[in-house]
Formats: sequence, structure tokens, C-alpha cells
Amino acid sequence: MPSTPIFQPALPRQVTIREMGLRDGLQSVATIVPTAAKIEWIRDAYAAGEREIEVGSFVPPRLLPQLADTGEVLAFAQTLPGLRASVLVPNLKGAQRALEASAELMLVPLSASHAHSLANLRKTPDEVVADIVRMREERDASGARTLIEVGISTAFGCTIQGRVEPAEVVRLVRAVLDAGVDSVSLADTVGYADPAMVSRLFEQVLRVAGDRLTCGHFHDTRGLALANVYAALQLGMTRFDACTAGIGGCPHAPGASGNVCTEDLAYMLASMGIETGLDFDRLLALRAKVAGWLQGEATHGSVWRSGLPRTMKIQETSHA
Amino acid sequence: MPSTPIFQPALPRQVTIREMGLRDGLQSVATIVPTAAKIEWIRDAYAAGEREIEVGSFVPPRLLPQLADTGEVLAFAQTLPGLRASVLVPNLKGAQRALEASAELMLVPLSASHAHSLANLRKTPDEVVADIVRMREERDASGARTLIEVGISTAFGCTIQGRVEPAEVVRLVRAVLDAGVDSVSLADTVGYADPAMVSRLFEQVLRVAGDRLTCGHFHDTRGLALANVYAALQLGMTRFDACTAGIGGCPHAPGASGNVCTEDLAYMLASMGIETGLDFDRLLALRAKVAGWLQGEATHGSVWRSGLPRTMKIQETSHA
Repeated sequence: MPSTPIFQPALPRQVTIREMGLRDGLQSVATIVPTAAKIEWIRDAYAAGEREIEVGSFVPPRLLPQLADTGEVLAFAQTLPGLRASVLVPNLKGAQRALEASAELMLVPLSASHAHSLANLRKTPDEVVADIVRMREERDASGARTLIEVGISTAFGCTIQGRVEPAEVVRLVRAVLDAGVDSVSLADTVGYADPAMVSRLFEQVLRVAGDRLTCGHFHDTRGLALANVYAALQLGMTRFDACTAGIGGCPHAPGASGNVCTEDLAYMLASMGIETGLDFDRLLALRAKVAGWLQGEATHGSVWRSGLPRTMKIQETSHA
Repeated sequence: MPSTPIFQPALPRQVTIREMGLRDGLQSVATIVPTAAKIEWIRDAYAAGEREIEVGSFVPPRLLPQLADTGEVLAFAQTLPGLRASVLVPNLKGAQRALEASAELMLVPLSASHAHSLANLRKTPDEVVADIVRMREERDASGARTLIEVGISTAFGCTIQGRVEPAEVVRLVRAVLDAGVDSVSLADTVGYADPAMVSRLFEQVLRVAGDRLTCGHFHDTRGLALANVYAALQLGMTRFDACTAGIGGCPHAPGASGNVCTEDLAYMLASMGIETGLDFDRLLALRAKVAGWLQGEATHGSVWRSGLPRTMKIQETSHA
């Protein structure tokens, strides 16, 4: 019998789930959710304990009519105390709108796949880095306190290009940190990551970015999103993107089953004793509401169907 | 920048997936799959590289008519060179049938939940341990080479009893090893386990059982099965049960989504560079066949829908 522990991974005590449903979720569904419903979504998510929500994207409305009301939705989110409402901005013009709206954080996607970057934005990754430099300059010149996060997408591979070299991801992380952005995140928008890849790439990027690597973004395309989160947790990551009802996907990832599901992620974390500040009953009620708004669209997730384990319910009662 | 590795888990090089679809899968669906189809299933699984298959259960046919042909199915499986065909035996009579049939391995379930054991078998766990002693004695007396594996079910909690103490699981593992069984496995038949629980309980049991803890059995009821496998891999576990198309469940776990899916598990392992000896195209073709036989029954899994990543396809081509 061995006398020393065989292996016990260290896990963080507290984790933040950043809700991506209103942006990464809705951008990939055909249904246009009315502004009033989005505001109800944000209100309910806030009541459930969510404190970071990506509310939309400052892209041309003709490209994403689902998100045309982002300015209005952001304005509502900014009325809720302690809520960090972020917006995605694909280019300098979007960044200017985010600065004008005093968004607390703007997320700028940067594809590590040369081919995906060209297909998506008609720019090479280095041209996007140059744009990011200008966004940071504009932010500084404007006096706005908007934080800039760069989300490195296709960080684990790409449906167009195939393999993406980890060294290229690390190079781009260095470049945007040198450009003065506040934080970076790593995204597997196409569901190519596995837990071993997550361990290796997050470790490499942590060596360069330290605590400026703030978030992991996983899609459940091949069922590995929660395993990938678990791998990243072991490296000390404490923030993950997720979508209510597991909606979303990527237009370049056919058959994709969407982002990791908020409710399932909240369950896994709670089961492991990691604090999220989230109220499970409210999350499930919100899920049902969102699924109702998106009738005919694919939704995902397990816990809404199976319910919580009896053991967790008993724990909750005993804490009440 | 830290100079030492932050964290890199060690993973095994080779893992065996033991197919449970013909037993744990079929026992919980209403459809009765004809014997000829089961034989086709085993033939195709063998051709796909599977070398451990649980082919049925020696229970009274009136309880599980789906598995009434277990003797015939086992006899076919025994004709395939190098295939370890196992059967589940719930009691001494089943064990006698397995010995008569010269099964290579019999799996005896032992519920760590007192309440579940009573509900399922009308026996306490210690009464089941006493039965297992008699099975081992009969095995030894018979001269048969049938291995005895005890599967500790409800090892992570129970839908009837709620919490199951890890100390009780460890006590039962000691008891059956003292009784002379060849191996033990830990099963989360109700989907209550999370990766942190898996790390802790597998470590505790490994301290008692060492390499006689041979297998992990996870259900995907709440979406955590693959994360749980990943946690167990980090402890050096090299054998996992799985069901083609993720079928199966537990009559005491309403809404359960079934066993971890063979194809998805095979994908996760292959993506991480862990050898399974399995041919992915054949696994997917078999999945489609099984789903066809089980029309109207719930099937699960992600990879059959999304396909393999482009990166994996390229790898396969370059190896060809």
C-alpha cells in the first residue's frame, strides 16, 4: 500500500461562469429573440447569481440581425449593480461603439488559424493584431475604462486549416499582450480540444500570460467540453464561458453541438464543491424560458433532464 | 515566468474499452434484439478491435427477457480468438451457469448502498459478500478458470439512499478481495460522480486493491462521464466500460442518459494519443446498426453526429 498520495489534483475554490448565450449562442441561431426577452434573460441570469454576461456584439446589423439591439441590451445590463457586461467587437468600428457605450469589457476575437482568420475577417492574424493595437490606442486616447480581452479562437485546431501550432497561439498571445491588452482567453470554438491538449496549451500560455490568461471557452461538439474544463481547472483557471441550454456553435463547424452548457457546468462545479454563486433552480427556470424562446432550435444539456442528485438536494436542504 | 512545469497529468499509453452494450445497454431497453443481431454486433465489435465484451447476464429470463439468449450469445463469442467475453451474474445460480459455460470472466454486482442492495436483490451488501464467498468456493471446486470481478455499484451515491460513504466502499472492496475474487471495479450507475469524487475514491480504493482495481464504469446521466474517465485516467486506470450509442441506464435512475458512449470514449482516448486498438469507422458503422435495431429507444453520443476533427482525419491519412 503506497504511503504517499497517488495523485490528487488541486482545484480552485471559486469559479466564475461567464454567460455567452446572448452573444455566442444567439449569433448562431436563426431565431431573433426580441429585446424585451433578452432583457428578461439578463434580469433572470443576474437574479440567479451571474455577474459576467456577454450581451451582444457590435457588428453590422445586416451581418447579425439577431444582435442588432446590442446597444440597447448593453444599456439595460449596465443598470444592474456589480454586473460586468461585455460585448464582442470584430473590428475597430465595433471597438469605437463599445468605447462610446462605456462597455466594461470588449472581447476581440483573434483566430490563431491563418485560414480561418482570412475566411472570417479577410485579414491575417497579424493584421488583426495590428487592429488590436489601434483599438488599445483609441481606448487609451478616449479615457474610457473599457477593458480589452483578446479571445484566441481556433486555438486547438480549425475546421478549415486543420492543425494550429501551439507555438503560433503562444506567439499571438505575446503579441497582443505586448500590444497592451488587459487579458487573453483561449477558445476551442470548433470542439477539437481534448483534456490533454488543454493541459498542455494552457500551461504554455500561462507561462507567457500568467494571470492575464483569464478565461477558457469550450464547445461541446464532441462531448469533451466538461472534461476540458476539468483539465483547465487543474491548471488554476477560474473563469469559463458557457451558454444557457448549451446553444451556439460556429458556422465553420458543421454539426457542432454548441457551447458548454451553463447549467451542466454549474452542476459539475457545485458537485466538486467549487463556489460559483449561482442558484440552480433559477438557472433551470431560465433554461426553460430560453428553450421556449428558441423553439425549433437545438438546445443541449443533461442536468435539466436528469435533475440534481439526491445527495445534492439533501445538502441544499441542510444548508437552508 | 515559472521555470518548472505548472502541472501536467500523467496518462496511460494504452486503455481497454470493455463493451457493455449487450448487457448493461440492452437490459434497460424494452426492445428485444434477436440473437442473430447480437451475434452480428459481437462480430462487428470484434472486427472493430474490441477484445472485451460483456455479452449478457445469467438472470432468470422472466426478469430480463432481453438477455434470455445469453448462453447462446456467449457460446458464439467464445469462438472468437482473443476475445474476453464476460457475463453478469447476480447470484449463485447465475454463477453456476457461468462456470458451466466456462465464461472467461463473471461480473458480480455488489451495491455499496444498503438501500439499493435491498431494493435490487433483497439482500444487504454483507449478505451479497457472503454469496460471493460461495461463488469463489464453487469456482475453485469446479476447476473452472472463470475469473471473478466484483463491480461495486452505487459507489458514488444512490438514488434511493442518497449518500454512500467512501469508507463503506473501501470496506466492501477489502471484504471481496479477502474473499478471493480476482478483481474489483467501481461503478457510478446513477451518474452521481464528479471528477473530484472519482479522483478521491479511486485513490482510496487503489490503496487497498492496487492493480486488482481494474475498471471504471461511468454513466453520463449528468454529462460528466468523460470528465470522470479523464480523472480516473490520471490515477492510472486503464480499463473502462462503455456502451455503443451510449445506451443503457438504471431502473433506479429516472431520466438517466445511459452509459458513457463507446464511440465518444474511443474518440477522447485517441485524440489524447492513448491506444485503444479500435477502428473508428467500424465503431461508427456498428453504432448506426445498433441504433437501427433499437429504433424508438434513446441513443446518445456526439461524435457520430459531428464526425472526427479534420486534424484526426489528416493523421489517419498520413499513417495509411
